[in-house]
Amino acid sequence: MEVLILLGSKSDMDKALPCIDTLKEFGVPYTLKIASAHRTPELVDKAIKDAEANGSKVIIAMAGMAAHLPGVVASKTLIPVIGVPISNKNLDGQDALYAIVQMPSGYPVATVAIDGAKNSALLAIQIIAQNNPNLKTKLQANRDKMKAEVMRANEELGL
Amino acid sequence: MEVLILLGSKSDMDKALPCIDTLKEFGVPYTLKIASAHRTPELVDKAIKDAEANGSKVIIAMAGMAAHLPGVVASKTLIPVIGVPISNKNLDGQDALYAIVQMPSGYPVATVAIDGAKNSALLAIQIIAQNNPNLKTKLQANRDKMKAEVMRANEELGL
Amino acid sequence: MEVLILLGSKSDMDKALPCIDTLKEFGVPYTLKIASAHRTPELVDKAIKDAEANGSKVIIAMAGMAAHLPGVVASKTLIPVIGVPISNKNLDGQDALYAIVQMPSGYPVATVAIDGAKNSALLAIQIIAQNNPNLKTKLQANRDKMKAEVMRANEELGL
Amino acid sequence: MEVLILLGSKSDMDKALPCIDTLKEFGVPYTLKIASAHRTPELVDKAIKDAEANGSKVIIAMAGMAAHLPGVVASKTLIPVIGVPISNKNLDGQDALYAIVQMPSGYPVATVAIDGAKNSALLAIQIIAQNNPNLKTKLQANRDKMKAEVMRANEELGL
Amino acid sequence: MEVLILLGSKSDMDKALPCIDTLKEFGVPYTLKIASAHRTPELVDKAIKDAEANGSKVIIAMAGMAAHLPGVVASKTLIPVIGVPISNKNLDGQDALYAIVQMPSGYPVATVAIDGAKNSALLAIQIIAQNNPNLKTKLQANRDKMKAEVMRANEELGL
Amino acid sequence: MEVLILLGSKSDMDKALPCIDTLKEFGVPYTLKIASAHRTPELVDKAIKDAEANGSKVIIAMAGMAAHLPGVVASKTLIPVIGVPISNKNLDGQDALYAIVQMPSGYPVATVAIDGAKNSALLAIQIIAQNNPNLKTKLQANRDKMKAEVMRANEELGL
Amino acid sequence: MEVLILLGSKSDMDKALPCIDTLKEFGVPYTLKIASAHRTPELVDKAIKDAEANGSKVIIAMAGMAAHLPGVVASKTLIPVIGVPISNKNLDGQDALYAIVQMPSGYPVATVAIDGAKNSALLAIQIIAQNNPNLKTKLQANRDKMKAEVMRANEELGL
Amino acid sequence: MEVLILLGSKSDMDKALPCIDTLKEFGVPYTLKIASAHRTPELVDKAIKDAEANGSKVIIAMAGMAAHLPGVVASKTLIPVIGVPISNKNLDGQDALYAIVQMPSGYPVATVAIDGAKNSALLAIQIIAQNNPNLKTKLQANRDKMKAEVMRANEELGL
Repeated sequence: MEVLILLGSKSDMDKALPCIDTLKEFGVPYTLKIASAHRTPELVDKAIKDAEANGSKVIIAMAGMAAHLPGVVASKTLIPVIGVPISNKNLDGQDALYAIVQMPSGYPVATVAIDGAKNSALLAIQIIAQNNPNLKTKLQANRDKMKAEVMRANEELGL
Repeated sequence: MEVLILLGSKSDMDKALPCIDTLKEFGVPYTLKIASAHRTPELVDKAIKDAEANGSKVIIAMAGMAAHLPGVVASKTLIPVIGVPISNKNLDGQDALYAIVQMPSGYPVATVAIDGAKNSALLAIQIIAQNNPNLKTKLQANRDKMKAEVMRANEELGL
Repeated sequence: MEVLILLGSKSDMDKALPCIDTLKEFGVPYTLKIASAHRTPELVDKAIKDAEANGSKVIIAMAGMAAHLPGVVASKTLIPVIGVPISNKNLDGQDALYAIVQMPSGYPVATVAIDGAKNSALLAIQIIAQNNPNLKTKLQANRDKMKAEVMRANEELGL
Repeated sequence: MEVLILLGSKSDMDKALPCIDTLKEFGVPYTLKIASAHRTPELVDKAIKDAEANGSKVIIAMAGMAAHLPGVVASKTLIPVIGVPISNKNLDGQDALYAIVQMPSGYPVATVAIDGAKNSALLAIQIIAQNNPNLKTKLQANRDKMKAEVMRANEELGL
Repeated sequence: MEVLILLGSKSDMDKALPCIDTLKEFGVPYTLKIASAHRTPELVDKAIKDAEANGSKVIIAMAGMAAHLPGVVASKTLIPVIGVPISNKNLDGQDALYAIVQMPSGYPVATVAIDGAKNSALLAIQIIAQNNPNLKTKLQANRDKMKAEVMRANEELGL
Repeated sequence: MEVLILLGSKSDMDKALPCIDTLKEFGVPYTLKIASAHRTPELVDKAIKDAEANGSKVIIAMAGMAAHLPGVVASKTLIPVIGVPISNKNLDGQDALYAIVQMPSGYPVATVAIDGAKNSALLAIQIIAQNNPNLKTKLQANRDKMKAEVMRANEELGL
Repeated sequence: MEVLILLGSKSDMDKALPCIDTLKEFGVPYTLKIASAHRTPELVDKAIKDAEANGSKVIIAMAGMAAHLPGVVASKTLIPVIGVPISNKNLDGQDALYAIVQMPSGYPVATVAIDGAKNSALLAIQIIAQNNPNLKTKLQANRDKMKAEVMRANEELGL
Repeated sequence: MEVLILLGSKSDMDKALPCIDTLKEFGVPYTLKIASAHRTPELVDKAIKDAEANGSKVIIAMAGMAAHLPGVVASKTLIPVIGVPISNKNLDGQDALYAIVQMPSGYPVATVAIDGAKNSALLAIQIIAQNNPNLKTKLQANRDKMKAEVMRANEELGL
């Protein structure tokens, strides 16, 4: 597996789907685990150990509220960690954003937008693609597709 | 020792002093450790284990930025954990406040004001005082003193 | 009764249920009162007096907007007070959070997350459990259950 | 006395001076008390009772952080209460603003700007002036003076 | 008429109803006008002039977004002006709150809570009641009623 | 004169200097007035009338706190109005930003950054330059100069 | 064409309609393009070039989240650029507002309210109208109509 | 060179030093350029092209206010981009944080803390270290050193 995805809670699954779908679309093998930093620290530890043993290149961690999971994971491995702040009923994910991006010196988390699951996958793929020309080609194709969609939108709207 | 105080960083020491001074003033034995949730998780674990072995009644954890320490501690013990958000150069401690108070269901942190070190000690003492009539008397005396200070301020200003 | 629960308004009842349910689940006797700091200060006073007379160990106070109830209660008793900021139509409970957590020196309120009623109960139980081994066992069992739920979620999703 | 001024803390005195100076300038008799809602509720009660007995027309209450004083005063009297949020080291007075202005239905506080002590006095004077033609004249003169200052500033700068 | 109510926009009418209903309930005569500070400044001027001519005691001004109406009105009369920030689709009324409460020195606006129409009426009535014992009696009765409602809520819920 | 600059207060002069200097540098004639929307509405009116009579192309209005000046000006003329939110001791200009940018439908204010006096001048010049090829040349030269400064900075630092 | 409208995404079309409708209503010719700063920078470049070639007077750019489009456009042309922050699911458009209005020195964007599409059109028309007496007449008529609507609203409500 | 560092402005150099020092300390070759997204887009383009030609593995982009640089760079290359929000006089870097982290779908920026220059270097090194065992060893040594510093701090303070 190339990517380990950790969800802080089962309830975050819906918001994680764009990440999973994107990794599938790019053919990047991943392992997905629900593993709370507070409820199941051993599960977090085991998932990280397995990821290291399997040569995973990136870990993506998603969590809401006082989202400790990405930072805790970042402190336990040298694998780059991407953090996705998940929005909740209150505060629009601002709490999760601060709890993920404002990491103190020494343990960075590569933070993407609030509910930015798709971008977490793309960032992971960009990191992996540095040593995988095939993936680079797919990334470029994806950008070309995004561009084409804009072009087509203009056409369809007669702009 | 009755209280374990954990500081996320040596640089938080100045802001922790009002907590330490208050515990001293009330004669409440405490142990102080600098123990980062990210840098030294084993030290955090050991401090918690020692606190449990010694029958500590409360743990006070202080940290800034994406302040994970209080929540991580709360997930590792049944001892009540008081969290103190520490302000930094940017954001006025709002990041630490969210990272401490917005804990997900299951692992509460008793959060006090930003830089509220003194109140963290008083809250700890109130918890301990439930089984310590002597401390309750001191707490009441402290409140009487605070009231007297207001009275005296009025007098001194001729109000 | 071990816990006094005070709601600032009848309309907060729905958000208080997770607190009540958790206390019931743990078998912790409680008294519930609707008692506004502004509308019925005498009722607040009486409820606190009764709680003190009955040897209550914790008071949980919930309120929204300019939520004064937890702080006002904290100023009238030495029993530890847990504050729950309740969200309203506007501002996502940020107003209540500030009005509860930012207590001035001398009168701490142990603040939990916005709408964090369940955690207020768990924090109360943790405080009480310091002198109640049976409750400590239940708390540990609850944490084991939360862990098991994460494990089962992984299994059910085939992760 | 026409106006009762209540400061939540002796440390707010500096920020209260523009209020006091303005009342003096307009010749409006006032009583000033330091009276914390939490430390000295009896003093608050007594000051309100005295104000009512003396026919005070307005109460001005200033406080910082989780500023309960204005709202607590408003709940204890029918005299209109003006609240002044005082800024502190952190949060720029945003916490005090929310804790004062977001009063629940039934107990309004007439809130002015953060650190708006001067405006609290002017608002009090406007309320009193409704039955005091002399004060109205002074208020108009004050506005004329403010206008003249702008005119003079333009002249001095050669604009 | 005792009170002039100004709405910045016809679309604010729904949120103004609790103000109108409360004035009716207390038997306080009022005039209501939709009068935008930007669209119809002459209408604003005329309404203020009429209010002054009729001996109005208070003006209530409600507006949303960059809510200039209350401050503009305050600059044109010595009658006390109460401002009600109205929430919109975005920003939860935080923009209107700042645009109303943060008035510069010289022109205070007595600001109440976001969407606090009812409290704007009660504040107006408290100001008027200073010279109207009958209204004071009604205000006290209203507070007694609010207290009774809390008492009844406790009874109904068997608390 | 091509541009009218209005300052809400004499105290904003320091922050207005980059605007004035830029207009001078580009040789764009301007008139500067201190004219508060609340203190001196007649002065505001007169300045706008003069600007219209003189064929001014843009009005720049700067103000802090509940900054009504830009919006009030925008409601009184068809000349495009640029608003500059000025920061104050508290809130970092966030209050002024909201009070200027969140104008309701019908009366736009072209808002620039908090304390963005220089950009207000450049925006004014861009508007005027649409009919002034000479100014366009100067604007392009300014951009070339800014680019050259970056180039030189790289050189000086040996990058 | 007088105005170029650029949308950062096809999904912003609904929020752009009030802009388009207003330009149509005033008879101002415009070109509309969907052109993302990130996906299709060449399309952005081409649209700007065309706008310059066609003598466009204003460019309106709308985007959400980390809304770079208005600022990027502003850096590529001397035509005045109006930016419209578009709100999204989270943060109420506050992110887009900052990303548009807080432009660094040298490249101003004339920012209007969050989701302020209609005002972006009116601001564009005001700029163009400086050299188009017919448009000025229409603008004045529009203001008269807005005023009449307020008058009629008062009549219809019997105010 | 392994890393390209881009600063949006010469004035950000001070805040960039911890990034540069860390890369030096780890012996990671880097190229540093001041290259504004708005002032010198060609310089940005050239720097990216050079980085791609030289096989750079990561680009670090730092900028303040409406910080477009990181996102613009991310849209022009498949190399992973790390963004550092730089704080300014107002808003504490909150504007830059939003303008960097809230990137729309398709173009992620790996965002670190406000003024988190050191962490941007460490994140870059972690990414590079995935294919560089020597760097991994150094990273582990750095973490060991950070841990040792905490240990020593405890010793020095006699804790």
